[in-house]
Order: sequence, then C-alpha cells, then structure tokens
Amino acid sequence: MLALRVLELQESGQTIPDLRQLALDCGFVDLDEDYDILLRDVCIRAAKSRISGTDTDDVRIVHAVEALDDIDKNVNELSERLLEWYGMYFPELELTGEPLARFVMAFGSRGNVPEDHQLFDKASKSMGSELSFADEELLKAFASNLCGLYDTRRQIESYIVTGMGSLAPNLTDVAGGLLGARLISIAGSLEKLAAFPSSTVQVIGANRALFKHLRSNTPSPKHGIIFNNVIIKNAPWWQRGKLARAFAAKISLAARTDFYSGEKDPSIKEQLEKKLSAIRKANPNPPKKKSKPKGKGRKKRGGRR
Amino acid sequence: MLALRVLELQESGQTIPDLRQLALDCGFVDLDEDYDILLRDVCIRAAKSRISGTDTDDVRIVHAVEALDDIDKNVNELSERLLEWYGMYFPELELTGEPLARFVMAFGSRGNVPEDHQLFDKASKSMGSELSFADEELLKAFASNLCGLYDTRRQIESYIVTGMGSLAPNLTDVAGGLLGARLISIAGSLEKLAAFPSSTVQVIGANRALFKHLRSNTPSPKHGIIFNNVIIKNAPWWQRGKLARAFAAKISLAARTDFYSGEKDPSIKEQLEKKLSAIRKANPNPPKKKSKPKGKGRKKRGGRR
Repeated sequence: MLALRVLELQESGQTIPDLRQLALDCGFVDLDEDYDILLRDVCIRAAKSRISGTDTDDVRIVHAVEALDDIDKNVNELSERLLEWYGMYFPELELTGEPLARFVMAFGSRGNVPEDHQLFDKASKSMGSELSFADEELLKAFASNLCGLYDTRRQIESYIVTGMGSLAPNLTDVAGGLLGARLISIAGSLEKLAAFPSSTVQVIGANRALFKHLRSNTPSPKHGIIFNNVIIKNAPWWQRGKLARAFAAKISLAARTDFYSGEKDPSIKEQLEKKLSAIRKANPNPPKKKSKPKGKGRKKRGGRR
Repeated sequence: MLALRVLELQESGQTIPDLRQLALDCGFVDLDEDYDILLRDVCIRAAKSRISGTDTDDVRIVHAVEALDDIDKNVNELSERLLEWYGMYFPELELTGEPLARFVMAFGSRGNVPEDHQLFDKASKSMGSELSFADEELLKAFASNLCGLYDTRRQIESYIVTGMGSLAPNLTDVAGGLLGARLISIAGSLEKLAAFPSSTVQVIGANRALFKHLRSNTPSPKHGIIFNNVIIKNAPWWQRGKLARAFAAKISLAARTDFYSGEKDPSIKEQLEKKLSAIRKANPNPPKKKSKPKGKGRKKRGGRR
C-alpha cells in the first residue's frame, strides 16, 4: 500500500517524504538492510497487483468472442466429418449440423430409431450399410463431443450477451450483444472502439474490400461486420449504404457513452430508429442506374485483379 | 436372389432360361403384369444390397483415419485457445494441450488447487487475475469438451489399430497400425495400395517435394509419410534414403499379401529386419560430401522457386 501511495505521489509530482528515515525513526524497521528487503517485497507485490489489474471486463469479453469463433469453425469441420462418416450408414438422413449430431448421439445405428419416430420409415428402408457395434460406439462418442461443443457455444454466447449488458449497455441496446462484442474484439477494447471515428466502425471487418478500394479504384465497402445486424441485412440494396452510415454513427456514439459515462441512455436507440425510418422513407425505390462513365475511370487503374 | 443369380449368369456369359415363361408356367405369378411388378421390386432390392455392400472394412478404416486427422487439427486449435484464455488467470502454469485441459476441468480457478498438489505453490503466488464464477464455469465447460475430444481421439486410434489387425495383419506387423491405416487412407483402399509400386509407397504424402523434383531439378524426396516410423525417423540422415527404400518395398509386399491372401506371414517382418541391419552395418559413417558440381546443374533449371 505504501509503495502504491509513493507511486501516486511520484506521478502527481508532489514531494515525497524520506520514507527510509521515517521508518527507521518510528521503529518500523531496525536496520537499513531490513528496509531494503521490505522495499523489494513491497515493490514486487505492487507490480503483481498492477498486472492482475489488466484483466478488465472487455478483455474477458474479447476472449469469449474469440473462443466462440474458434468453436464455430471447429464445430463446422467436425459436423461435416460426421455427415460424411454417418452418411455411409444412413445416406437418406437429411439432417446436418446439430440435429444430425443429436440424432447420432441418441440412436447410433438406424436400427434403434423407434417406430413412432418420424424418421422410422426412412431408417427401416435405408440402403446404408449395417453399423457394427464398434463403429456405433465410435460415432456416438464423436457425436456426443460435437453436441458438447454446441452446448458450450450456447453457454459462451449467453455469457457474452449477459456480460455486454453490464459492460456496454448502450452498445448492446443499439447493436445487440454479439455484434457489440465482436466490434470490441476487433477493435481490441471498448476504449479503442470508443476512439474510432464512426466511418471506421462502419467498415470494421471489411479490411480486404477497404484496402482494395484504397489501392485501386473499386467502390468503397458500405459495411463491415455491422452487416450482420438485421437493420442492414434485411434492407434492400440501395438503402444499405445509407443505413450503415447512420447505424455506425450511433454505434460509435453508444460506445463512447458506455466508455465515458457508463450510464444507459435510451435516447440513442430512439434517435437511431427515427433516422432509419427517415432513410427508408426517403428512398422507397431503387435508383435508376447511371448509364454512363465511372466504369471507364475505374478500369483505367486496374479494376479487379 | 433370383435377380442376383440372373446377373451372375449374365456376367459369366451363360445362357439364361426364359424366367418369365418359367414363372408363369409353374404358377409363381398369375399374370404378365404381376411378373413385371415383381421384377421391378427385386431389381430395386438387388441394387440396394449392392450399394450396401460397398462398405468394406478398409472404407471404415479410411473414415476413422480422416476423423482422427480432423480431431487432431481441431483439438490443437481449441487447446491453443484455452492456453491463451486461461493464461490470463494463471500465467505461471506451464501446461499445454491435454494436461492443461485436464487441469482446468479438475480445478477451474487456481484457488481450488489443493495444498498437497505440486502446483499449489505456483497457484497461490500467481499474478494472474481472479477468476469469477461465470468465467470459471465457461472455462470448465470448454476444457471438458476438449478432454472429451482427447478421449474420442484415443478411442478412434485404438479402433484403427484393432481394425487394422484384422484387415491387414501383415501391413500392421511391418508398418504399425496407424501408419498402415494412413497409407490405405491416402491410397484410397487396400486394393489400390497393393497395386502401387513400392517406389510410390515410399513417397506417398510427399507430393509437393515429388512434383517439385519432377518439375525442376531438386533432389527427389526420400520418404513421404513412412518417415513417421521410428525406423526412418530415428536413423541418421545418410541411412534414411536406403532404409526408406527397403521399408517401402516390404510395406508394398505386406499390403499385397494382405489383399491377395489375407494370411499373416511373419517372414516379411523378419526379412525387413535383416535388410535394415545390413544397411545399417554397410553405412556406419556419414559419406564425405561431394565437393563438386551437381549444384550447377540444378540451378540451371530454376532451383528453388
């Protein structure tokens, strides 16, 4: 504690009392050497406590988002493998992904499908080969691992959404928990996201398209990962750019409010809604395509490569 | 059955009796149409049974090997993620891979490490941050999934070794279960592996190096995946090419014996051992490097690209 206080005093530029003399005078230590040993110990503890302090809420969220992405990728690969493997024994089964894993885990061989199951008919007439006991055990173990990963995925997702609700309530309100967490994860921290201009927020995750735009003369990307929000995804193409700009502006505002005040401000979401409906009203029809130039100007500098 | 018999007769070029007339005569069917319906039904069943028959033992092994590779890849990625994630809470822990997953699954927070555990000292002095309950649950779930994958991996491995023992006893004897299975998996089936010349077996899995050798003038690869066997792996570099050639020849021989006779022949392994020790005896010391050309000839046609 003393060391931390000294550090604070140093940082604020105030004069520091001669601690060594003070400690010796009041009998806190007996010898100069004792004081040195104590000082070293205190400094190490202070350093450790500072390092522990680097674990903030947004670091946790970033880790969870990265774990989520990893699980997504791996789950896809493993479920494709399961599809191919189990397809040898029951090619008529039209399930993929999680339903397939649950099916295999529950029944194993298609001979175990009960009569009242909707797939009984397919299972009994299947032209797949018979599943031996050893293979069945293997497939079931594989499928149950896959199911476990799906469960963990859900758990992490709800953790992120809950965590975002307390870490960045405004951002969660505007962009949704997962998208907000992904933005923080790509930016590195909530602080960095708050420092980004909204034009950067708009194209976060569209790096390739952005740099292609800067290098050659391709059109600039209209949206990065914020495309995943229904606001943009479900909009007709001619509104997307405008909607993305308004959306990114409010995301940026929300991140700043979260980082600097930490209080929830419902007006951001309201303003966003107003802005979005104004854009939708102003652009009800697709614009007529310009029949002329541009294209030429683009091609000059390379166009697509 | 009838249809299959007819197919067999057709294939062997014998004359087929007029089945339709026969069936009508003996009262097996009453009408011409009945016979058509029956014929259609029988043909469908025959086709299904032929399709089911495509599932041979080596197809199963191939699937298992592919699943094993997939699990390996995914387990590596997930365990790296766990290392990074858990490292925030216990950076002094020097475990990786499976031991790490088992540790996290067993203890979760480092506060739960019991006093008599060898890591208790590190855990109590760690400068990692505190693990909250929600994070602990998440990490434990993640780690337990990972442990499940490790278990399944072992299960698949023992399945492969067992399966190979009955499918290809000689190949297993000479090359080991896993390496044999991998060779079959890359070749496509035991039949194809048996048809490969041993020079192909020697470089299976070294495709890039082989084609580079054929294209430019780089030295030919000495071994493909057979390098994974201790015979090659533990040998000094100047013996590897010779050992690999002898080893591949015996693998090829074993695969052929397995496919065409199916009986175990211990003499293959014995001959291999003899051959290997002869090579080792004949080449005890590294050869002197040739101080001259070759290099030039190589460079002419491009060398490394």
